[in-house]
Amino acid sequence: MLSEVPEPSFEPDAGRIPALQKRLAKLKLAAFLVPRSDEHQGEYIVARAERLKWLTGFSGSAGFVVVLRKQAALFVDGRYTLQAPAETDASVIECRHFKKPPAIEWLAAKVKAGDRVGYDPRITPVSEAERWRDAMAKAGAELVALDDNPIDQLWTDQPDDPFASVHAHPLAFAGEKSADKRARLGEEVARRGAKATVLNQLDSIAWILNVRGGDTPSTPLVQSFLVLSSDGHATWFVDQRKLTAGLAHHLGNGVTIRPIEAFADGLKDLAGETVSIEPDTSTAWIEAQLKAAGAKVMRGADPSVLPKARKNHAELAGTRKAHIRDGAAMVRFLAWFDAEALGLSELQVMAKLEETRGEDPMYRGSSFTTIAGSGPNGAIVHYRATEATARPVEAGTFFLLDSGGQYGDGTTDITRTIPVGRLPRELKRHFTLVLKGHIAVATARFPKGTGGIAIDGFARRHLWANGLDFDHGTGHGVGSYLGVHEGPARISPLSQVPLEPGMILSNEPGYYKTSSHGIRIENLLVVREAAAEGFLEFETITLCPIDRRAIDVGLLDPAEREWIDGYHARVAKALARQLEGPALAWLKRMTKPL
Amino acid sequence: MLSEVPEPSFEPDAGRIPALQKRLAKLKLAAFLVPRSDEHQGEYIVARAERLKWLTGFSGSAGFVVVLRKQAALFVDGRYTLQAPAETDASVIECRHFKKPPAIEWLAAKVKAGDRVGYDPRITPVSEAERWRDAMAKAGAELVALDDNPIDQLWTDQPDDPFASVHAHPLAFAGEKSADKRARLGEEVARRGAKATVLNQLDSIAWILNVRGGDTPSTPLVQSFLVLSSDGHATWFVDQRKLTAGLAHHLGNGVTIRPIEAFADGLKDLAGETVSIEPDTSTAWIEAQLKAAGAKVMRGADPSVLPKARKNHAELAGTRKAHIRDGAAMVRFLAWFDAEALGLSELQVMAKLEETRGEDPMYRGSSFTTIAGSGPNGAIVHYRATEATARPVEAGTFFLLDSGGQYGDGTTDITRTIPVGRLPRELKRHFTLVLKGHIAVATARFPKGTGGIAIDGFARRHLWANGLDFDHGTGHGVGSYLGVHEGPARISPLSQVPLEPGMILSNEPGYYKTSSHGIRIENLLVVREAAAEGFLEFETITLCPIDRRAIDVGLLDPAEREWIDGYHARVAKALARQLEGPALAWLKRMTKPL
Repeated sequence: MLSEVPEPSFEPDAGRIPALQKRLAKLKLAAFLVPRSDEHQGEYIVARAERLKWLTGFSGSAGFVVVLRKQAALFVDGRYTLQAPAETDASVIECRHFKKPPAIEWLAAKVKAGDRVGYDPRITPVSEAERWRDAMAKAGAELVALDDNPIDQLWTDQPDDPFASVHAHPLAFAGEKSADKRARLGEEVARRGAKATVLNQLDSIAWILNVRGGDTPSTPLVQSFLVLSSDGHATWFVDQRKLTAGLAHHLGNGVTIRPIEAFADGLKDLAGETVSIEPDTSTAWIEAQLKAAGAKVMRGADPSVLPKARKNHAELAGTRKAHIRDGAAMVRFLAWFDAEALGLSELQVMAKLEETRGEDPMYRGSSFTTIAGSGPNGAIVHYRATEATARPVEAGTFFLLDSGGQYGDGTTDITRTIPVGRLPRELKRHFTLVLKGHIAVATARFPKGTGGIAIDGFARRHLWANGLDFDHGTGHGVGSYLGVHEGPARISPLSQVPLEPGMILSNEPGYYKTSSHGIRIENLLVVREAAAEGFLEFETITLCPIDRRAIDVGLLDPAEREWIDGYHARVAKALARQLEGPALAWLKRMTKPL
Repeated sequence: MLSEVPEPSFEPDAGRIPALQKRLAKLKLAAFLVPRSDEHQGEYIVARAERLKWLTGFSGSAGFVVVLRKQAALFVDGRYTLQAPAETDASVIECRHFKKPPAIEWLAAKVKAGDRVGYDPRITPVSEAERWRDAMAKAGAELVALDDNPIDQLWTDQPDDPFASVHAHPLAFAGEKSADKRARLGEEVARRGAKATVLNQLDSIAWILNVRGGDTPSTPLVQSFLVLSSDGHATWFVDQRKLTAGLAHHLGNGVTIRPIEAFADGLKDLAGETVSIEPDTSTAWIEAQLKAAGAKVMRGADPSVLPKARKNHAELAGTRKAHIRDGAAMVRFLAWFDAEALGLSELQVMAKLEETRGEDPMYRGSSFTTIAGSGPNGAIVHYRATEATARPVEAGTFFLLDSGGQYGDGTTDITRTIPVGRLPRELKRHFTLVLKGHIAVATARFPKGTGGIAIDGFARRHLWANGLDFDHGTGHGVGSYLGVHEGPARISPLSQVPLEPGMILSNEPGYYKTSSHGIRIENLLVVREAAAEGFLEFETITLCPIDRRAIDVGLLDPAEREWIDGYHARVAKALARQLEGPALAWLKRMTKPL
């Protein structure tokens, strides 16, 4: 089960920042930069890399700390402006908004000519280090890459690396042999004129090697590094004790396995070669090691990103099956919710959902921490229920539930907004406006080459017409038994990456009225060829009723009603065989034509 | 009348390129770059700057020539791939697609280390010259700014500068005194830490000084340069003989008038000062002169662009009045067209339209060359009728008519697609799909900060759903008795510039079926505050029936029908008083509810 990765506990201690500041003096550093990141630049970081949290007490998922000799500042975004001061000690660190001014601008105004500013190149992307270096140079200061992270020297009980077993991802689900993937990516590396590429992103590595592990929460990744040669050969730097029986055979002769500690040595072996790295994810340390070894570094995209996003037939077939089972689990859960949940706490509801999904032998754990918000808690977009904040299921409002599963054959992500009891009219109106946006995305057809930015407005048009909006993108990419957030395409006001056949994306418009209620309706989509030459469209793969009791049918136009009825007919047909008793009765009731 | 600017005639001569190549040898240049542009970087260039046309014979509105010692290439976009070879002599120049590869990449592969590549800095923007310089440096060559354009030395009968009289643009239409505009822009210049800004864009100058001239086709501009100081004082470099009586008084003490030949001297007067210039429109020559004079050059946007785009109350009132008169002229014309046009040529139709608009004493000429395409000619997006290409008005197809007027109080731009006789069903379906997109844009509401890119998809959604699309933006900005194409905002798949209240934009989705028919429905819109706090919406200001005979009413949803009926009721009410006889009867017939 993926969710077993333990979260380390950190006892806050206001003495740590002063201790670090003393060390800066010894190291002749005017300042030290502490991002919240690790060697792999993914969504989750390993416990050992939770340096920002250990240093400051701040537990949010995004933050940046600048420690000067006699001052320190934590930079957080709008989500954390309350939480950051509550978790940190104002006598040693101040909390600041990450744009007013940005951390590096703030630091640039503090440093003097000749100052040395330290950073850890192992956890910093090439492009980020470059921005810091330029900003410091403009201020007359020097950015210095440190061999050792000074926090690690103070953090005596730093957690160990995660240790989860590594399994083969069967060809039946992967759809393409690792050797074939490696040959094809190797050709792309050769096409660029490079001899190899170095990869530190764990989802890229898992996809290329057809392996899955459990080193990060909610995602079946394996802490490791990979060097992929233009001839398709790969060297995998990984703790070999994690590998389950038969895995070496699964990997075959084309993959050399070396200890993760040998990664630096492995980079030295590239002496004299041209090596392609992706500047936004490869770390400054990797680039520096390559250059020190005499390799010629060339910058180029991680060649696995697009092939990984364009799911093949087997990946899509697996994902569709996972969605049928996940939909049935959701229906069992929702039938239970209707009958039993009134008055239960958000945490009890979450536990029941986890239990229901867990009955599936293919279930490997949740694909992210469930967001379960009753009434006003539903209006907090990144809400995470705790004993202190949890509200009971209440009548007359919505219960917003955003959750997903990791299954051996696919990854799911679904949001349903459940009406509890009789809803005020305004809530049904808001729900229906969100639904109209959801349908507009689901039914969109668009020419090849179109980016998500052109579709995003479809989700908002009806909300906008009523002076409403939502403050997040409409959709993100989703992996195939991999990350529930996967690049490069998105449906958002910013993304120009063209949507391509086989990509899986979420469709999740919402509306949030602070202190009152939150609404989000989320299905996953697969991009596919449309009948018209040169055009693409979406197939909705999530199968679960959208609650008819929350719809103001009068606000739907005939085509929208038709879509809902057609979708519900599909849902009923796909799920009925897997359900019985009250859950089956609930499904039939909820999928009748409007 | 604006349309009187004579177009120079150019007798093609294949000897010019070899003559230029000889001159390159004397100048020790390996190559010379010939863009199609002049000192002012606007949409139209003065006849004297038609060097590309003189040199090659190519008459298109966009092109780029690279002349090497023994070779020359003309780079054109997809519109001109047939026209360019037809107009040029293959024995001296080859025609190439402007992206396969781009001209500068093509040149970079030809030059040798140490080669000198010449360009004319007077007609080249700062940012463009920088790109060229970088590309040449990478290839080991040097980009050299030439004091004199070598083409001018060969072109013995180069036309004179245009000479059109300059009038005051009355305060009643401008809505803000020039002195107030200059004070406000001066403050912005001061806020940047600059002492002055130098402007070469003619629409900026006309707007700032509240003057209008006639030096460019279709737009009331005055060939000149302006230096605007942070204290609001301006020095205007212009041929003073063009100024009509009273203009100096209109300009007042805050504007010093100097001969246009004194511009270089005027830049020298900025010695020691910080001067802001816009790198995409200011020329490399201006920057070089400033630097040579010892001024400190700072890069920043032309400060007049946004204030000019956000029309004030008087400008909007004038534009609305111009649209009522233009709408009445269009109705008179369309009533005539229905009764008389069958069998007439596109050119005869254009002449009648011009004659009809010309009856208005406020009419100053067309705002661009009318696009009048019968049947298949309507499918050519940038079609310009000539005696050779003109088709007669034919039954059973569309006549596409895109035209506009310059009036003393405003600028119009309208496209109507006129059904002639009985239409095949497919044409009505296409027309209605375009109309649905037009309505989706017209009725859009959106949060402040939204760029045109988020609206553009609304115009395409229904076409896309049927596997159709159009290959141009949905809308461009429009000036107030100024350019019919005005920045910075657009409704296009590329524009992220936020739409702001007072901006005038076109709404012109289309559909083009090659060799069959073209459809475009264009009204102008004004961006205004919506009732909901923080939201904006559009007001349609073009007033002219959208031809009901081309609509397949069954494809419209109730809200779309309601919009058409509401629009036609507004049109009827606004125009009826100005019309009589057959035109009034036609208006009444065409604006009845669907």
